Amino acid sequence: MPGYTLATTLDRPYAETVDAVRGALAEQGFGVLTEIDIRATLAGKLGVDVAPQVILGACRPQLAHQALEIEPAVAAMLPCNVVVRALDDHTTRVEAFDPQAMVAMAGEALAPVATEAHSRLNAALAALNEE
Amino acid sequence: MPGYTLATTLDRPYAETVDAVRGALAEQGFGVLTEIDIRATLAGKLGVDVAPQVILGACRPQLAHQALEIEPAVAAMLPCNVVVRALDDHTTRVEAFDPQAMVAMAGEALAPVATEAHSRLNAALAALNEE
Repeated sequence: MPGYTLATTLDRPYAETVDAVRGALAEQGFGVLTEIDIRATLAGKLGVDVAPQVILGACRPQLAHQALEIEPAVAAMLPCNVVVRALDDHTTRVEAFDPQAMVAMAGEALAPVATEAHSRLNAALAALNEE
Repeated sequence: MPGYTLATTLDRPYAETVDAVRGALAEQGFGVLTEIDIRATLAGKLGVDVAPQVILGACRPQLAHQALEIEPAVAAMLPCNVVVRALDDHTTRVEAFDPQAMVAMAGEALAPVATEAHSRLNAALAALNEE
């Protein structure tokens, strides 16, 4: 089973990491189009308590446009989710959906676009480790 | 290459179909947590003109919670996107990300949850064809 995320674990608290992820994505040209606070949503809907975690829907418009021109149905996998989740008070996990997984599902024609998106997300994750 | 969407094409105009999709999802217990107007986003960011289309991020909280308990990283594939796209003035395509594709990527442990999500999305699409 190939991996479907690009991931890193940071020795930083959750809230600070969420801010750092936004900054690292912006540096790579990704805007955040959607945001789901999973903890708040599940607490509100189900009354359950899960770890602090958020899904950021990241989109670099040029790449999204190219991908949609090649394969309109790929919209079902956009934007590219980047999940930030507290593991404990000092440690935070960051997992981005790997655009290469879109190629596996939607076809090789998407490979050039996915490769660029993959590289940019990898660079964003690498930058988090360098701060 | 296995399919990654559940899809249907309707002889109905776009705006009416978007409303019908919202209703059909609600009937199956899915709330819409996110919404991206692709046409407006790409027009605003890039100045390009694409067909009217929207990504609705559908979530049935019970299923999302079950999935996250089994495999936290699956958040990178949530919520379940349902894309509505105008093909022409009278015809609209509806494509939902198939939860079974999550199993292919994230593992068999998710199969029971994905099967229920798949069934409910299929029922929502079937209801659109019966209206």
